Amino acid sequence: MFITVEGIEGCGKSTLLAGLSERLRDGGREIIVTREPGGSPAGDAVRAIFIDPALSLAPLTEALLINAARVQHMLETIEPALGRGATVLCDRFTDSTLAYQGYGRGIDLGFLRSICSAATGGREPDLTFVLDVPVAVSRARVASRRAQLDRLEREDDAFHERVRLGYLELARAHPRYRVIDATKSAPEVVADALAVFAERVA
Amino acid sequence: MFITVEGIEGCGKSTLLAGLSERLRDGGREIIVTREPGGSPAGDAVRAIFIDPALSLAPLTEALLINAARVQHMLETIEPALGRGATVLCDRFTDSTLAYQGYGRGIDLGFLRSICSAATGGREPDLTFVLDVPVAVSRARVASRRAQLDRLEREDDAFHERVRLGYLELARAHPRYRVIDATKSAPEVVADALAVFAERVA
Repeated sequence: MFITVEGIEGCGKSTLLAGLSERLRDGGREIIVTREPGGSPAGDAVRAIFIDPALSLAPLTEALLINAARVQHMLETIEPALGRGATVLCDRFTDSTLAYQGYGRGIDLGFLRSICSAATGGREPDLTFVLDVPVAVSRARVASRRAQLDRLEREDDAFHERVRLGYLELARAHPRYRVIDATKSAPEVVADALAVFAERVA
Repeated sequence: MFITVEGIEGCGKSTLLAGLSERLRDGGREIIVTREPGGSPAGDAVRAIFIDPALSLAPLTEALLINAARVQHMLETIEPALGRGATVLCDRFTDSTLAYQGYGRGIDLGFLRSICSAATGGREPDLTFVLDVPVAVSRARVASRRAQLDRLEREDDAFHERVRLGYLELARAHPRYRVIDATKSAPEVVADALAVFAERVA
């Protein structure tokens, strides 16, 4: 099973992934936790470019870099894990490209989908959690955890609101998405996600 | 005027660029010499990934990385230079993507053209020199200049032959290309290129 976790900065993806992977591992499954951009040596090198505040990256540059890393991520991590029956939990995936570079930056969604589809070989997640929080909550959480913001975190509220609304629009269009109210406490969010997981497996 | 120089490894691109830029500068023009991947801070960071022999890169990864670097190259170097009337000489451009990742690696040419067109905003070179040498000559030249081969130089002869024939096919299809016999001496190649340049300007 291929599960992705999406949402704006500070929505609690890492906390959910830690809680979810712990509980699913207790159930005896092989769980692979990975993230984008990353998940391969080339992907990690791309990640370093992506988050470097000193580098200027146009929206299309972001989209192409992310998908370059994604190709290697699929080949080196995700497809081998799914192929041997593992459950893959991924922090961001193609929906981040659509939400950030599409809804957020204004690149044509059809063009982005064609690149994502080439990069993933058409593989889609079985289940995507969209952790929804208002932008003000996102801001407060990010500010509390570190002083140095990365390139995306420095974007203004209007950008993050477009990304948030983009995720919600994507989620309305396909049954693989489940939106979780991520203003709740971390244990509640994990419990909600586990309930959805159990329902999908059954 | 936007001039690109293309060809397989060891065809003499650098030598031609040095000779051509020197002669054109003597004519009083502003000449910008640049290369792909590169031409911007992000592009140089992508170049380091691209040529690292320790990294495994799928053909599609190569194509996406190169075009990510190209977006920044256009924005930061090429378009500003052309905009102020400079002549830009570029070592590799979109034809390298078509020749290497298309003819060489087998990625669909139409898909590559759509990405290249997005990355360049539709800008095409005014003149493209294809320096043609047999693969055996390329091999001998590359071997003579350094012991450590980069990732592309390590590819087999069949790959380099597909790339070479790809360039020749591209060159037959559009009048902006001029194929130069690059088995000739460096001064002869520069003289041939200058003659073509003069003819195009006139």
